[in-house]
Amino acid sequence: MLSILKQSNNGSSASGQPQNMEFSQTFSESTGVRERVQEEGQTSQLQQPPLDRRTNVHSFGNHSDAQSSPYLSARGNIANICWGSAEEGYSAYHADKYDENKNPNGIINFGTSENKLCFDLMSKRLTQSDMNVMEPPFLQYPDWKGHMFLREEVAKFLTYYCKAPAPLKAENVIVQNGCGSLFSSLATVLCEPGEAFLIPTPFYGGITQSVFLYGNVKLVYVYLDSQVTGTCTRPFQLTVEKLKKAFQDAQSEGVGIKDIYSLSELQEYLEFAKRHELHVIVDEIYMLSVFDESTIFHSVLEMERLPDPQRTHVMWGTTKDFAISGIRFGTLYTLNQDVASAVASLCYLHGVSGPIQHKIAQLLRDRDWINQVFLRANHERLKAAHTFVTDELKTLGLPFLNRNAGFFVWIDFRKYLRKGTFEEEMRLWRRFLSNKVLLCHGKGFECSEPGWFRIIFADKIQRLQLGQAQVRSLITTSTGPHLS
Amino acid sequence: MLSILKQSNNGSSASGQPQNMEFSQTFSESTGVRERVQEEGQTSQLQQPPLDRRTNVHSFGNHSDAQSSPYLSARGNIANICWGSAEEGYSAYHADKYDENKNPNGIINFGTSENKLCFDLMSKRLTQSDMNVMEPPFLQYPDWKGHMFLREEVAKFLTYYCKAPAPLKAENVIVQNGCGSLFSSLATVLCEPGEAFLIPTPFYGGITQSVFLYGNVKLVYVYLDSQVTGTCTRPFQLTVEKLKKAFQDAQSEGVGIKDIYSLSELQEYLEFAKRHELHVIVDEIYMLSVFDESTIFHSVLEMERLPDPQRTHVMWGTTKDFAISGIRFGTLYTLNQDVASAVASLCYLHGVSGPIQHKIAQLLRDRDWINQVFLRANHERLKAAHTFVTDELKTLGLPFLNRNAGFFVWIDFRKYLRKGTFEEEMRLWRRFLSNKVLLCHGKGFECSEPGWFRIIFADKIQRLQLGQAQVRSLITTSTGPHLS
Repeated sequence: MLSILKQSNNGSSASGQPQNMEFSQTFSESTGVRERVQEEGQTSQLQQPPLDRRTNVHSFGNHSDAQSSPYLSARGNIANICWGSAEEGYSAYHADKYDENKNPNGIINFGTSENKLCFDLMSKRLTQSDMNVMEPPFLQYPDWKGHMFLREEVAKFLTYYCKAPAPLKAENVIVQNGCGSLFSSLATVLCEPGEAFLIPTPFYGGITQSVFLYGNVKLVYVYLDSQVTGTCTRPFQLTVEKLKKAFQDAQSEGVGIKDIYSLSELQEYLEFAKRHELHVIVDEIYMLSVFDESTIFHSVLEMERLPDPQRTHVMWGTTKDFAISGIRFGTLYTLNQDVASAVASLCYLHGVSGPIQHKIAQLLRDRDWINQVFLRANHERLKAAHTFVTDELKTLGLPFLNRNAGFFVWIDFRKYLRKGTFEEEMRLWRRFLSNKVLLCHGKGFECSEPGWFRIIFADKIQRLQLGQAQVRSLITTSTGPHLS
Repeated sequence: MLSILKQSNNGSSASGQPQNMEFSQTFSESTGVRERVQEEGQTSQLQQPPLDRRTNVHSFGNHSDAQSSPYLSARGNIANICWGSAEEGYSAYHADKYDENKNPNGIINFGTSENKLCFDLMSKRLTQSDMNVMEPPFLQYPDWKGHMFLREEVAKFLTYYCKAPAPLKAENVIVQNGCGSLFSSLATVLCEPGEAFLIPTPFYGGITQSVFLYGNVKLVYVYLDSQVTGTCTRPFQLTVEKLKKAFQDAQSEGVGIKDIYSLSELQEYLEFAKRHELHVIVDEIYMLSVFDESTIFHSVLEMERLPDPQRTHVMWGTTKDFAISGIRFGTLYTLNQDVASAVASLCYLHGVSGPIQHKIAQLLRDRDWINQVFLRANHERLKAAHTFVTDELKTLGLPFLNRNAGFFVWIDFRKYLRKGTFEEEMRLWRRFLSNKVLLCHGKGFECSEPGWFRIIFADKIQRLQLGQAQVRSLITTSTGPHLS
C-alpha cells in the first residue's frame, strides 16, 4: 500500500508542483497553513467536506456527456477535454497579453502561479560563461536517471538546504523534466490503474492530471477545515484522524488506496502511513520560497530516522524556488531501489536536455550566489510584492487569506456575488477578465464555497498596480452592491 | 481505427526513433530496405514468421515468472524488469568505458545507435553567441505545444527538407522532448488500453516500451522476409497483402488494431489504412542521414494529397539527423486538431526546456550552415566510417547486411556458433563483451535466427579500429571453428 504526503510545514507555501498554466484555473490547489482571514474579523470558510462521501474519488473519468472525437480513444477524449477546458481564460490572455510597450491595455495574468520577479537575476546567471558549455556527453544519450555530475550536485544541494543529518547520496537521486513528470511516473509504478491516492484539500490541482492522464490513478480527498474547531489548532490542519477516516471511507467503497498527501506533523503522518504500509510522497518544491524570516522550513530529509525509509519519496524542483518554470527540472530522492529502477525506465520519456543538466548543476553548486545574491533579492521582492497587494486589499476592504510564503493570496469576494452560486462566481470571473484581469476562481481549485479568487502577487509592482486598479475600478464603479 | 506507418524509403535507414541506450539491446529494430548479404554469396535469412500466430501480439506483459517487488504495482514491476534487463551490457560498459586517455583498455560501445562523428560541429554551433540567450519567455511556462517561434521554424524546416507542395503550418506542429515521448502520447490518445499497433519487423524496439509502459498498447508484428520471393522484389519488402494478413489475424484473435508501421510504397499503405480507417504514424527521424548521394529521401509530406489527412501523423526529431541524442527534441505534424489537443494535454509531461527551444529554432533556421557545413561533413564522415567497417568485414570474411544509410550494419556470425541457438548467441555476445566490445545481438531485436550482431559504425575511426581489432583477434585466435 502506498501514499503521498505533501510536506509544507508552518508558513511555507503548500502549493507544490510545477504549475501547468493551461490548467491552473481548472483544478484545486493547496492554500497552505496558518492562513487567516484579515479585515472585518471574518473567518475563512472554504467549506468542507461535501455531504456525499461517494463523490470523494476524483479524476477526469466522468465526461461522458461531453462531445467526443471519433479519432480518439476514451482516454484521448478526456485529454482533449482537459486541454479545451483550460482554454477560455488563457486563450483570451494569449490573444491579448499585456505588454508594457506593445500592448499596454492588454490582459494582466494573475492566474499563473509563477514567480516573475527574478528573471533579471536568473537570465544573468544562466548566461555566464560557465553555463555556455557543450561537451560531447551533453549531446549523447545520458544515463536516463540523469548525468552523475548533476545527481551529485542535487545530493549536495539537498543535504545542505534540507539540513540532512548525513550526506545524501547521488545514487538515490533521479532527475526528470519537472515534478509533474515525477508524479506521473510514481503514480504508474506504485498504483494499479483505477487505484487512488489520498490527498488533503485544497491542493495543487495539476496533480490530478499528472497522476490520471497516463497512470489512470485517482485522488481521494482528505478535506481540511479552514475553521479552527475540535482538536485542530490551525486552519487547514491535517490530522491522523482525518487521514484515517478518508482511508477507511475509501476502503469501504472498494477503492484501493495508495496515497496520502499533506501538511505538517510529518512524523505522525509518516507513522500512520507506516502502519498501513502506505508510500509517502513528500513534495518540497517551495522550500526556498519562504520570504518571512521568522518562518523556518523543515524538510523530511532533516529527520534523524524516517519511520519507513523504503516507502518515503521526496521531490523538489527549480520551478518555484528559482523562478524558472520554463526550464523544466524536477528531482526525486528515494532509498527504494525498486521504485528508483521502475521510475528510471520511464525517465527517457521525461528526459532533461544535456546542456540543461549542466546549467542546473552549475546553478546548484553556486552556493554563494544562491545565498548572497539570489535568495536575498528574491525574498525581498516577494515580501514587497506581498505587502503591496495585501495593503491594497485592506484599503479596498476585501478580506483575504494571508500567509508569508509562496506566490499567492486568496481573496474573499463572496459579498459581491448576487447569489452564493458557482454560476455567479463564474460571472464575476468573466467580468474581471473583460476588465483585463485574469484571476483563478475557487471552483477551479475545488473550493466548496463560491466567491473565492486567487491572485498571484509574485509579479512586478507596475503590473500589480495596473491589475489592482482594474479590480478597484470594478468594485468602486459598480452601481449596486453586487458585481456578478 | 488507427495505424502507424513507418516511412523509410529506398536507401534511407528504417530505424526511427530516439534510441534508448539502456534498452537498445533488448528490443528489435528495423534493418531497413535494400539490405543484402555481401561476401560468400549468402542470402540473408532473418527467418520469419514464427509458426504460432498467437504469439504475434507483443508487449512486456508476460513476466509473471520474474521476481516481483512488493513495493510496486504490476506495471511498476514490468518497468523495473525493463530497466534491469538492459543492465548487463551497459552496466559493464559504464563501469569500464573506453577513453582514449583515461581508460585506453576500456570497453568500446558499438551497441548504442548514435552518431558520434559530429560533436565538434554541433558543440561549436550550439555555443555561438546567438545560442546563449536567456529571455524571460524561455524561463516562464510556455505554450505546452511549444513556443510559437519554434513551431514556426519547424514548419519552415519541414516544408523545405520534406519538399512540401505548400507551406506547412506552425499551428499543426507540436514539440516534445523526443519521439519516444510522441509515441507514448499518440499510443495513449489513439488507443484504448490493451489495443495494438500493427508494425512491420524488424523495427526499432524502443517503440515497444514507448507505447506500452504508460499506454498499455501492444504491437502486432507484420513479419517481412529478407529473402526475395513471390511478389517481393526487395528484401524486407512490406506489401499490402502482408499488412492485410496481420490485420485480419489480429482481428480474428480479438485484438483491436490501431496501427501499422512500415517502409516504402507509402501511397498503397496509406490507401490500405484509409480503407480500414487506421491512423498512420510516419516516423521520418533519419531523413537527413542518407549518406549515399544516389539515394533520394522522399517524405510523406511531399505528397500532393494525403489519402486520409486526418489520420496521418508525421514525426521527426534532431536526435539522429543532427547527432544530438542528448538534446531531447522531437516534433509531430498533424492536421487533426482533436489529436493535437489530446497530445497537447500530455505535453507538459514531455516539455522541452525554454533555452533548448531557442537553440533548436536557431539551428533549424540556419539553412546555410546545415547545408554547407553540417550535412556535407556529416555525410562524408558517415560514408568514410561505413567504408572502413565494411572493408574490414570483407577482409575478415564476415558476411553482413549492407546499406548506405543510417548508423549500423548487421553482421552474420552464424558460422561461429557451435549450435544455432540463442544461448550460443548470448555466449558469443558475452565473449565479445569480455573482449571489450559491446555489440547488440539479434535476439535483443527480435531476430528469429541466432547469430546476427549489430555494429554501430557512426563512430571515430580510431575507436572503430580498436573495436574491430578485438573482433579480429577473437576470430583469428580461436582454437576451433566456433567462438561461442
